[in-house]
Amino acid sequence: MADKEELESVCKRRGFVWQSSEIYGGEAGFYDYGHLGARLRDNWERMWKDYFLGLGEHYHMIYTPNILPHRVLEASGHVDHFSDVLVGCKRCGNSHRGDHFLEDITGESAEWMGKNEIASFIKENKITCPDCRGELSEPENFNMMFQVDIGPKGDRKGFLRPETAQGTYMNFPREYRALRRKMPLGLATVGSAFRNEISPRQGVYRLREFRQAELQIFFIPEHHSEEFEEAYDNLTSKQLSLLRAGWEEVRSVSLDDLDDLPKFYRYHLAKMFEFYSEKMELSKDRFRLRELSDDEKAFYNRIHFDVEVNMESLGGWKEVAGLHYRGDYDLTQHQDASGQKMNIPIEGDRKIPHVIELSFGVDRNIWALLDLGYRTGERDWIDLPDYISPYQVAVFPLVKKDGLLEKSREIFEYLESSFNAFWDKSGSIGKRYARQDEIGTPYCVTVDYDTLEDDTVTIREISSTNQIRLKVSDLKKELQDYINKEKEFQR
Amino acid sequence: MADKEELESVCKRRGFVWQSSEIYGGEAGFYDYGHLGARLRDNWERMWKDYFLGLGEHYHMIYTPNILPHRVLEASGHVDHFSDVLVGCKRCGNSHRGDHFLEDITGESAEWMGKNEIASFIKENKITCPDCRGELSEPENFNMMFQVDIGPKGDRKGFLRPETAQGTYMNFPREYRALRRKMPLGLATVGSAFRNEISPRQGVYRLREFRQAELQIFFIPEHHSEEFEEAYDNLTSKQLSLLRAGWEEVRSVSLDDLDDLPKFYRYHLAKMFEFYSEKMELSKDRFRLRELSDDEKAFYNRIHFDVEVNMESLGGWKEVAGLHYRGDYDLTQHQDASGQKMNIPIEGDRKIPHVIELSFGVDRNIWALLDLGYRTGERDWIDLPDYISPYQVAVFPLVKKDGLLEKSREIFEYLESSFNAFWDKSGSIGKRYARQDEIGTPYCVTVDYDTLEDDTVTIREISSTNQIRLKVSDLKKELQDYINKEKEFQR
Repeated sequence: MADKEELESVCKRRGFVWQSSEIYGGEAGFYDYGHLGARLRDNWERMWKDYFLGLGEHYHMIYTPNILPHRVLEASGHVDHFSDVLVGCKRCGNSHRGDHFLEDITGESAEWMGKNEIASFIKENKITCPDCRGELSEPENFNMMFQVDIGPKGDRKGFLRPETAQGTYMNFPREYRALRRKMPLGLATVGSAFRNEISPRQGVYRLREFRQAELQIFFIPEHHSEEFEEAYDNLTSKQLSLLRAGWEEVRSVSLDDLDDLPKFYRYHLAKMFEFYSEKMELSKDRFRLRELSDDEKAFYNRIHFDVEVNMESLGGWKEVAGLHYRGDYDLTQHQDASGQKMNIPIEGDRKIPHVIELSFGVDRNIWALLDLGYRTGERDWIDLPDYISPYQVAVFPLVKKDGLLEKSREIFEYLESSFNAFWDKSGSIGKRYARQDEIGTPYCVTVDYDTLEDDTVTIREISSTNQIRLKVSDLKKELQDYINKEKEFQR
Repeated sequence: MADKEELESVCKRRGFVWQSSEIYGGEAGFYDYGHLGARLRDNWERMWKDYFLGLGEHYHMIYTPNILPHRVLEASGHVDHFSDVLVGCKRCGNSHRGDHFLEDITGESAEWMGKNEIASFIKENKITCPDCRGELSEPENFNMMFQVDIGPKGDRKGFLRPETAQGTYMNFPREYRALRRKMPLGLATVGSAFRNEISPRQGVYRLREFRQAELQIFFIPEHHSEEFEEAYDNLTSKQLSLLRAGWEEVRSVSLDDLDDLPKFYRYHLAKMFEFYSEKMELSKDRFRLRELSDDEKAFYNRIHFDVEVNMESLGGWKEVAGLHYRGDYDLTQHQDASGQKMNIPIEGDRKIPHVIELSFGVDRNIWALLDLGYRTGERDWIDLPDYISPYQVAVFPLVKKDGLLEKSREIFEYLESSFNAFWDKSGSIGKRYARQDEIGTPYCVTVDYDTLEDDTVTIREISSTNQIRLKVSDLKKELQDYINKEKEFQR
C-alpha cells in the first residue's frame, strides 16, 4: 500500500521507473525502466512465460512487428471502432477524454457513453471545461491509433499496433501447419502496444506506449483432450473470488458453480486466479476477477472478466489483466478480408477455431507489485515475490580488511551463477541492509570473521529481519528452497 | 552457406522467420519470428546480455520507449541529418535509394555520395529508371524516421526511434546517481528500432522495423581502473583478424599492434572479436572487423569498426555489428539542448564522459547464424551453437507401446527442467532425426527396450550423427558438459 508520490520518488531515486525524456521535462504517457525496473520486468515476464506457456503442450511465443499495415487494422475493426470521445475546450484548448472527465464530475462510470450521450449530458447539465470553465466543443470520436506512413510516397498507411494480438491471429494458419496441426494451439507474444491517449494520467497505469503479454489460445469448442479433462478435474475443488456481473460483492465459488460458462473458459479463469494468488503472491482481498456487463464489454467478447487489483497509489480497483472469450470473431474477420482460409478439418467438417485471449498489461502488473509491496514505517522496504525481486540475494563483507573483502567476493561469485546477486562493500552493515530493503532484496548474506574460521555466514530475511547462521556449502540449496517456497526461513 | 530461397523456404515452413502480414501478401521491410525463430532470438539475446553486461561491474540493462519526442531527435542530430537520397521515377513512380541503385549499376560503393553527387552522376551518365527506363526526378534528401503525432491536437511531433541509443544517453545522469557514481558505467538496451527504408530488400537484412542490442559505455578517457588494466593485459596475447582502413586484406594482429587506437577501444574490439569467434562460434574466415574510412564514417564517430559476416544468401560481406567511439558528442548535444548538466566530477574538475557504443543488429545476427549454419546434401541440417539452438535436446520413444512412451515422457520432463527440450513420438526414428536436423537440435535421445532393462539411452549428435549409449542418471551432466564445451561428444 503506497502513497503515489512517495512510491514514485523511491522508484525514481533507486532506478525502477520514471517518466521518459526526463532531462527535457518529461513526456506524458511514456515511461523508462531503469536498471532495477528492467530486472523486475524481465523477471515478471519470465515467470509469465513459464506459467502460461506451461498450460498447454503446443503453446509457443512468437514475435511480430509494432507497425501494422492499414488493411490489417481495418479487418480487425480498429480503424472504424478504436476510438475515444474527445471533448475540447474552446477557450484554453485543452483536450479531455469524454468518459473520464464526466466520471470525475459525476463519480459514476461513463464508459458506456458514446459521443451522442456525452454531448447530451454536457448540454443538459451545462458542463464547462474542468480546467478553465470555458465552453466545450462538440464531442467527436478520436481514433486512438498512432498512424505512420510506410515508404517514401505517403501512399501506404500503417499504424502502431494498439494491442499485440493481431500478429498471432494472422500467423495462425502458418503456425498451425508448422506445429503439425495440433489443437489447442497457443500463440503468445510479449511486446509493445500503443494508444494515443487523449490525456494520459496516473503514472504507468495509462500510457501511450505500454507493454502487453498476451496468450491467444485457438481451440475447437467442446473438443477437449483427456489431458484437459484431467487437468480440469484437478481444479474443481479450488475456490475463486469472483465478482460476476450483477453481483453486489465478491463471492467465493468453485468451478462447478460457474456452469453457465464454457468449461474451457472456466479452466483459464481458475488458472489466472492461481497466477495472481500463487505466483504474484497477492492476498485474496487485494485482487478480484470481475465480470464485465454487456454494457461494458466489446461486442466481439462473449465473456469477459478483468483481473483488478486494489492499489492505493491509483485510488482503488484497477484492471491489470483480462480473460476474453472472443469466439471466432478474429479469424473470421481476417479470413473475410484476406481471402485466406482460417478453418481446419474437424470430424469430416471444417471449422474456424475459437479464441480465448489471456491479456496482461505488463507495466500495470509491475506497478501493482510495487504498490502492494511497498512498506513504510520504522524502515522502508518492498515485499516482492522472491523470484521477481531485482536481486534475490546481496552479499556483504562485514569490513573491507583481513581478507573479508576477498572472501565475500568469492561467495558472491559462487551465488551469482545461480541467482541474481548483488555485492556491496560500502557503508555500515545497517546502511547496506537499508539499501537492499528499499529495493526488495529478500536475502542478505554477511561475511564476517567467523566465516574465515568455520565457513559459515549470517543470512537475513527481509520481512522478518530475522537472521540465521548457515554453512557456505548449504547456502545455494537453502536459498533455492526459500525462493521456491519449499522451506520457510525461520530463526 | 545457403542459397537464399532455399533457406527462406525452410525458415518459413518450420517456423523461424517470414515476411509479416503474410496472409495479406506480405509487407516489405517487416518480418515475423515464428515459434522457433522466437526461441533462437531469445537465446541469442540472453547470450548477448550475459556476455556484454559481464564486461563491467556497473553495466546494466534499461528499457525506454520506441516513441521519442521531436526535441530529443533534434538534439541528437537525426532530424537534420538522418536521411537517404531518394530518386523517383517520373514514369513508373517507383522510388530508389540513390546510393544503392548507383551501386547496382557501377558495382562500386556509393555510400559517400550526397544528393548533389548523385544528381551529377545521373546527369553525366544519362542514368534512367532501372525498372522502366523512364526519366528520373531530381534527387532529394528523404528523412528515414517514421513520424507520429502525440496527443489529439497534432501539435506534438514525435518519431519512432531510429536506434535504441538515445534512451541510454538521456538516462545517464539519473542512472549515474542511482548507481552511486561509478565509472565506467554501462547502459545497455535491447529493443526495436525503425527506419523508413526507401526500398527494403534482402530479407531480414534491411528492415523498416528491426531489433537492436546496444551497450553504451560511459567512461573518462585515460582513467582506467586496476581491474581494467589486468583484463587488458590478459588479452594482449590474442590475435584478431582486422581489415583496417587502407589495408588491402585482412591481417592477424595483436592488441599491441593497434597502439594508435585508445586502449579502452582496443579492449572492446578484442571482446567483440571474442564474442563472434567463441560465443557465436563463427570460423575466422567467415567474419572480420573492418575499419571504416573517414569518407564512410559519421562525423561524430572518432573510430568505427564494423563486424562483417560473409553470407552467401546475401551475396557477400555484410555488416552485423559495430563498435563506435563517439567521444562526448551525444552527452554534449543533450546537455546543450536540455540545459541539464551531463558532466561529472573528476579530480577537482568536471568532465563530460566519453561513450563507446557496441551496437548489434539482432535480426542480422540471427540470419548470419542461419546462413552460415545451413547445410544441404545427403541431409539438411543447421549447425548452430548448442545453447542458441531453439531446442538443445529432443527425446523420442522408439515405439509407442510397452511403456516406452511413458518412459520417454518421464525422461523428457526430467531434461526439460534444465534444457530447452522437445518430445516427439510420431513417425519413424529416421524421420524424427531429420525433423530435428532441419531445426538444428544438437542432441537426440532415443528411449528403447534396453532403457527399460538397464536405464540407458542412445544419444545422437547432429554434426557427426554419431551415437553413444549413456546412463539416464548421467544424461544431464553429460549434456551440460557438451553444451558448455567442457567435453567433446565422441563415439
